[in-house]
Amino acid sequence: MTSDAHAEIRNLVGQWQTAFRAKNIEGVMAVYAPGAELTAFDLVPPLQTSGAKSYKKNYEEFFALYEGPIDVEVRNLSIFAGGDTAFLHCLDRMSGTLKGGQRSDLWLRVTSGLRKIDGQWRIVHDHVSVPVNFESGTAAFDLLP
Amino acid sequence: MTSDAHAEIRNLVGQWQTAFRAKNIEGVMAVYAPGAELTAFDLVPPLQTSGAKSYKKNYEEFFALYEGPIDVEVRNLSIFAGGDTAFLHCLDRMSGTLKGGQRSDLWLRVTSGLRKIDGQWRIVHDHVSVPVNFESGTAAFDLLP
Repeated sequence: MTSDAHAEIRNLVGQWQTAFRAKNIEGVMAVYAPGAELTAFDLVPPLQTSGAKSYKKNYEEFFALYEGPIDVEVRNLSIFAGGDTAFLHCLDRMSGTLKGGQRSDLWLRVTSGLRKIDGQWRIVHDHVSVPVNFESGTAAFDLLP
Repeated sequence: MTSDAHAEIRNLVGQWQTAFRAKNIEGVMAVYAPGAELTAFDLVPPLQTSGAKSYKKNYEEFFALYEGPIDVEVRNLSIFAGGDTAFLHCLDRMSGTLKGGQRSDLWLRVTSGLRKIDGQWRIVHDHVSVPVNFESGTAAFDLLP
């Protein structure tokens, strides 16, 4: 059962990646629990985003920063599953051209918590970030794995 | 069993909090898987910290920034558990006086992944962050829940 869970969750990440590259917002949101159950600690403020509807807006705003498609590479994907609960972590490289014409290429840390809901794994919690420099107060967008 | 897991994990967080407030590094590390299994996406660079030994250094460096004790409040703790796998998320308020005499008071987002190892819940993955402003490149240390 655990190996099934791992394969199913790996597929879910693949499904998310395909949708993300195409900026297909409905496809992206299909991997998440649809309602209020979802909570996210996103890359940008506020501290916490509650509910799928709000998190969808975050994705739309992120997509809108880029001209054309965004490439995403998923590296070091680790999956842990037991019963109807799982979590994963990975490093995501996002690269593309911003609306102003500037090239952007950054690595994000991603941790997701999942539940098996009606027989399907769905993400109920997302945490996306970059490290920050405590003393200078700047975000570290230029780190490599 | 799930309610046992919730109570056990809630205790583990309490144990961490007590140790953290006392800057008791061994007490803090006791809630983590002791070896190479632990991976952390910490508040500060690098992108990823691997192994309990490295993560302990991060804690020591964080503790060293503060003069005297650090108060920590844990808010909105949510726990999800199934079988031998669990994850939690919460908001942690860290407040204290920095070495230079400056007062610091900030909210962090925390997500942890846990495994039951030899009958004990242990954190095998930590993700700690603040949001960042994508355009200005600054860390948002002043957000309130």
